Amino acid sequence: MASDEHPLSHPRDWPTDVPASGAWKPGDPVGNRQFVELFTERPMMLEGGESLGNITCAYETWGTLSPTADNAVLVCHALTGESHAAGQNTGGPQGDGWWKDLIGPGLAIDTNRYFVVCANVLGGCQGTTGPASINPATGKPFGAAFPTVSIRDIVRVQASMATHLGIETWMGVVGGSMGGMQVLEWALMYPDRVRSIAPIATTLGSSAWQISWSAVGRMIVALDPKWNGGDYYDAAPGQGPHVGFAIARSLAQITYRSDEEFESRFGRSLVEPHQIFGSWDRFQVESYLDYHGVKLARRFDANSYLTLNKAMDLHDVARNRQSRQCALERLTAPVLTMSISSDTLYHPYQQQEIHDLVTAVGGHSEYHVVESPFGHDGFLVEGDAVGAKLGDFLERVHKGDL
Amino acid sequence: MASDEHPLSHPRDWPTDVPASGAWKPGDPVGNRQFVELFTERPMMLEGGESLGNITCAYETWGTLSPTADNAVLVCHALTGESHAAGQNTGGPQGDGWWKDLIGPGLAIDTNRYFVVCANVLGGCQGTTGPASINPATGKPFGAAFPTVSIRDIVRVQASMATHLGIETWMGVVGGSMGGMQVLEWALMYPDRVRSIAPIATTLGSSAWQISWSAVGRMIVALDPKWNGGDYYDAAPGQGPHVGFAIARSLAQITYRSDEEFESRFGRSLVEPHQIFGSWDRFQVESYLDYHGVKLARRFDANSYLTLNKAMDLHDVARNRQSRQCALERLTAPVLTMSISSDTLYHPYQQQEIHDLVTAVGGHSEYHVVESPFGHDGFLVEGDAVGAKLGDFLERVHKGDL
Repeated sequence: MASDEHPLSHPRDWPTDVPASGAWKPGDPVGNRQFVELFTERPMMLEGGESLGNITCAYETWGTLSPTADNAVLVCHALTGESHAAGQNTGGPQGDGWWKDLIGPGLAIDTNRYFVVCANVLGGCQGTTGPASINPATGKPFGAAFPTVSIRDIVRVQASMATHLGIETWMGVVGGSMGGMQVLEWALMYPDRVRSIAPIATTLGSSAWQISWSAVGRMIVALDPKWNGGDYYDAAPGQGPHVGFAIARSLAQITYRSDEEFESRFGRSLVEPHQIFGSWDRFQVESYLDYHGVKLARRFDANSYLTLNKAMDLHDVARNRQSRQCALERLTAPVLTMSISSDTLYHPYQQQEIHDLVTAVGGHSEYHVVESPFGHDGFLVEGDAVGAKLGDFLERVHKGDL
Repeated sequence: MASDEHPLSHPRDWPTDVPASGAWKPGDPVGNRQFVELFTERPMMLEGGESLGNITCAYETWGTLSPTADNAVLVCHALTGESHAAGQNTGGPQGDGWWKDLIGPGLAIDTNRYFVVCANVLGGCQGTTGPASINPATGKPFGAAFPTVSIRDIVRVQASMATHLGIETWMGVVGGSMGGMQVLEWALMYPDRVRSIAPIATTLGSSAWQISWSAVGRMIVALDPKWNGGDYYDAAPGQGPHVGFAIARSLAQITYRSDEEFESRFGRSLVEPHQIFGSWDRFQVESYLDYHGVKLARRFDANSYLTLNKAMDLHDVARNRQSRQCALERLTAPVLTMSISSDTLYHPYQQQEIHDLVTAVGGHSEYHVVESPFGHDGFLVEGDAVGAKLGDFLERVHKGDL
């Protein structure tokens, strides 16, 4: 009986086999990753003032680059994504690609026609240099010593990778959420290297609302004593910051979804029928949140989560460019912007603003709202609807109609 | 320079003088509280199966009970409220009443005409028995041994208090959020003792969405090692669970407000101009959230927060009553329901449902949406708008027109 327990003394049982960090590290299976060493001759000066040299960039590619290199599409991943954007799970270490419904032969981002690239971002944890990488100054993982990076820094690394791949100009740069932030910065930092962009479910500058969620998530990770100031890479499984990290992810997962979806999917269903009065008895929705929290902790790195959340908070196309509108005057590429109707984290008005300002400065802008109950995650879940518009847009760019 | 710091190693500085618990305890200034001992002869059997005897109930009253006791209004407080609902801060220990704009001479809940009562809820921490109270079985605070309570348990204690006060029938029972849950249960558990009700910004049953936020908040408190399984009452100031508690409150504070308000109030303003690239440099909205987190930790008890969040998750008028509609068939009192237009925690459709179901079972129902950008907190912030409708409703009840 639940009522026999001390109701407040036993929080959730967490699995004890979660690694201290889910970061990829040299020696782990590489899957389809390729690697390039960048900034080897002189370090990159980061926007925040620190510098970083010998940056490894992990990326994946699909399709074939045309002889004139005019069919390359860059896919930018979101906060907890990675380079493995496409492909079904074939038993390899990486599972399904996070945008597998959009990228592949005959799909919206058609790998029969386009050469598609997705790179793990700077500060990430799946092969590109980040907090879990070895700090050459100490021979140990950077941890808390990893510098603050911005979306612009992330894009600069991608630009260096593009040069390495022989891609002077992307036919398209596309992505949602944090990926969309990179898309926007690509078009503003390198207008000559981008023929079209598709920012999805994103914003010209993180709002106070978005910063709030991010800030609380970061505080939760740091509350876990096993985060240990960012130094946990030597910890045994179950001894890292996975509980704080999982709770931070649970919080984020709510903001990625919607009341409507949760109500139709879970309502007030219980994990164990009739077990409701114990303080830590769970409703189904709690089990769902726990599941997603632990799932992320197994495959991601807590310090990368902090680093990239901070990068998102810093995102502001107006920084050092006077205003959002002044920033967008740099833009020359045609733009397809998309919203998810039920997104309460990156509200549709933020994408409407992109459309309105691009139009105001005389650019070519198309805007589409995907009707969906899945909230912010709609840009991942609604592959068919997002793909239909995106595929049509890219096809017109490819044909030279845009 | 922020960039000279190790960016991930120093989370927010928290004040070191926060008491381990903000609970009121015997010997502390009583302010305007009165106390009554209830269930002294036989313990109360709680809905979850445990029992609790010798329950102290702290309450405050304003105005004068009429000779026929027909002018009594019960005000039910929300999650972190208390009995001090009315009155300006006069230098006493309790400060402003949480609904001071609505309760007072000539105000909507007119203390010149009505006898107004507000009781601290069972499981709370401002004088009514709760986790910080002494457990007679051990001589120490209950802590984790405090039983799970439900909204119905809370209302049963209030009913016993009403009898003690000589109030057989309330002219009105009113409240918002968790207060509104009590309002609904009053009308369903004691239909003969309630002449009217006004549930505001509340629900007939907590949704998966509401449970999600509550669950994550509770997990954050329990993540703080200084929560110590609920046993922290002996800890020195700064050694209790105030950091986890403050972060949980910060999270809740976001859900109580709105994107629109945050954007117009904070936007991307920084606490220290130009200090932005340090990992823990703060935007103004972060400072605001920290402030509200610490403020609550100073005046509330973390275990009460867990207990009452759980009570809210358990709230479901349909439990053991077949369905929501069947439950509402018990209701005889006229109902005024109110929503806040921008409330994304207790969405207006939930109050619309109250109105629709009361109407469907043949009851008298009035429904009003308060247009406000303040989100769920609008029921507290928009005193004038809420008071205008509530005052009119109570006046008609008082005159016998309803």
